[in-house]
Amino acid sequence: MSELIKSYAAYNNNTPLAPFAFNQKKMTDKDVMIDILYCGVCHSDIHMSRNEWNWTRYPIVPGHEIVGKVVQVGKKAKKYKLGDIVGVGVYVGACEVCPECKSGNSHYCDQFEGTYNDIPKNSKQPNYGGYSKQIVVNENYVLKVNKKLPLHAVAPLLCAGITTYSPLKYWKVRKGHKVAVVGLGGLGHLAVKFAKAMGATVTVCSTSISKKKDAQKLGATNFLISTEKDFFTKNRNKFDFIVDTLGGQHDYNSYINLLGLNGVYICLSFPQQEIRLSSPFTLIEKRRTVTASKIGSIKETQEMLDFCAKHKIVSDVELISIQKINEAFERMIKGDVKYRFVIDLSSLN
Amino acid sequence: MSELIKSYAAYNNNTPLAPFAFNQKKMTDKDVMIDILYCGVCHSDIHMSRNEWNWTRYPIVPGHEIVGKVVQVGKKAKKYKLGDIVGVGVYVGACEVCPECKSGNSHYCDQFEGTYNDIPKNSKQPNYGGYSKQIVVNENYVLKVNKKLPLHAVAPLLCAGITTYSPLKYWKVRKGHKVAVVGLGGLGHLAVKFAKAMGATVTVCSTSISKKKDAQKLGATNFLISTEKDFFTKNRNKFDFIVDTLGGQHDYNSYINLLGLNGVYICLSFPQQEIRLSSPFTLIEKRRTVTASKIGSIKETQEMLDFCAKHKIVSDVELISIQKINEAFERMIKGDVKYRFVIDLSSLN
Repeated sequence: MSELIKSYAAYNNNTPLAPFAFNQKKMTDKDVMIDILYCGVCHSDIHMSRNEWNWTRYPIVPGHEIVGKVVQVGKKAKKYKLGDIVGVGVYVGACEVCPECKSGNSHYCDQFEGTYNDIPKNSKQPNYGGYSKQIVVNENYVLKVNKKLPLHAVAPLLCAGITTYSPLKYWKVRKGHKVAVVGLGGLGHLAVKFAKAMGATVTVCSTSISKKKDAQKLGATNFLISTEKDFFTKNRNKFDFIVDTLGGQHDYNSYINLLGLNGVYICLSFPQQEIRLSSPFTLIEKRRTVTASKIGSIKETQEMLDFCAKHKIVSDVELISIQKINEAFERMIKGDVKYRFVIDLSSLN
Repeated sequence: MSELIKSYAAYNNNTPLAPFAFNQKKMTDKDVMIDILYCGVCHSDIHMSRNEWNWTRYPIVPGHEIVGKVVQVGKKAKKYKLGDIVGVGVYVGACEVCPECKSGNSHYCDQFEGTYNDIPKNSKQPNYGGYSKQIVVNENYVLKVNKKLPLHAVAPLLCAGITTYSPLKYWKVRKGHKVAVVGLGGLGHLAVKFAKAMGATVTVCSTSISKKKDAQKLGATNFLISTEKDFFTKNRNKFDFIVDTLGGQHDYNSYINLLGLNGVYICLSFPQQEIRLSSPFTLIEKRRTVTASKIGSIKETQEMLDFCAKHKIVSDVELISIQKINEAFERMIKGDVKYRFVIDLSSLN
């Protein structure tokens, strides 16, 4: 019998996360076992802990921004060796035969297996995520992490990082492009760094003047207060891309009108609301496009981590002990974090 | 004093179109004068005649799918000579200095001058469109028409043609792509022809089984009845492109879910309704994109006309006398036309 793995879990949708212990899944030949060093705290961890998307299985151990050390390797696992520093992101499995998988887009596979909450094939136990001491993952869903980067600040790259990197690459953001990042939080601050590193001129749109200095430090050339009276009229038709990271209710139509000719609106957060455009004219007027994006493939996540190593990009983080997780959730809801909480799992004993 | 030009006009938003005569605008050095042979009847002619978009100037002479013969040439107009067969489409002017104009996209210029209803700079009289015997247009907004094509069937290419051709080119539709055309009317039937000529596999989605044979004749490989019970579930994630030509109220969200990975939804008609997506998930799930498109540039319109000459593409039309225009409007509203009315201006005496 394997030893119990310590973790923190939500037991239902309205009590704080609390200690939980589970039996580790059995290693298969292609798996690697990872002792978790750090795990970033993603806003979807809150949504899922509170069952806000109506598909939570309790008890749930959140966490899909994982950095750790390989401590065991399956017989047929060839990619990693004991002691390697690795990452695990939002998903740990896919069918590998559907058109999405075959075209290198397994993150869009209908049988996408999330790092937590989803139940793997031939199992009854859901996956438990990174708010824990250890995880077992098929090597094909494990990422190589450059040891030279500060590892606690790498963790958020595994979700917030790839979520912002992937659409900017997909839409070929480059020098000459004007990119507006709406909302400067976990996603937003990485979107600024990536867009800047890709050569674009970045504008941050925020409700809070207090973030102006940070925005500039992160690489933004311009800073706009989105609550100013004439914000939407003055900045109409101005941007090539808008990266929308707003988690709360907001008026999509007005923001979309900030796009100029051929402008692309990229939705990265999942507020529980409709997207409404007042009419097709909103799009027609300047051949505007509205789209969204979901993390990135494993291959693209590795590419992103390598890009980060090359450009010295990591997340700005606030390191916390696991005992502070409920306080961290509350502060995230208020937007009070610069810019990502990361759990130091050495605090879980 | 120039002679009066005969035409048909709407005098207000609720009476039938009726004969109207106007003074032709003064030729400038860059203008050509065109005797109109044929003019297609576009759904926006109805919207405008009835002031459904709230910017109609009465009396209004509609018509922006014009084919005619050059009968006079300005002193500095070099592109056309007497007797040339030419076309005029949706617009006849733009500022020519803004970023849109300079990038070859004058159809998105903020000073876009419509072929009818708009008032040219330094003038008090609005432009009068193609439901008339004659038009005067700056040569830069006049298109060369291949005399070998049946000219009455060329007329609708000047609006319906370029409106469908432009987005298919912009999004690089080609062999291997699955394109669904929703609605088989003036726009839809040309979308089928163009998508087919570009190499795509075309599916027509229509409410009417009676259009199945036509759809196949036009080049569609598949035909689906959109009112069948399981239409939206059975065809989920199936297409690379959806060309939405539905003029009436409809549920965008359900249609968008028919797109597979990286699918693009192209709105080509302007129903007076909101576009609503139930949540960003509709887009995120398969990295879907929603966009729209407005005619095409003059250069692209010429390219489309040349493409049509090469691929022997024209509109399927029903030729009418101008006296039948009000009846034609009513039949169009009911979808009772295969697939575009074209006015034979020789009937206007």
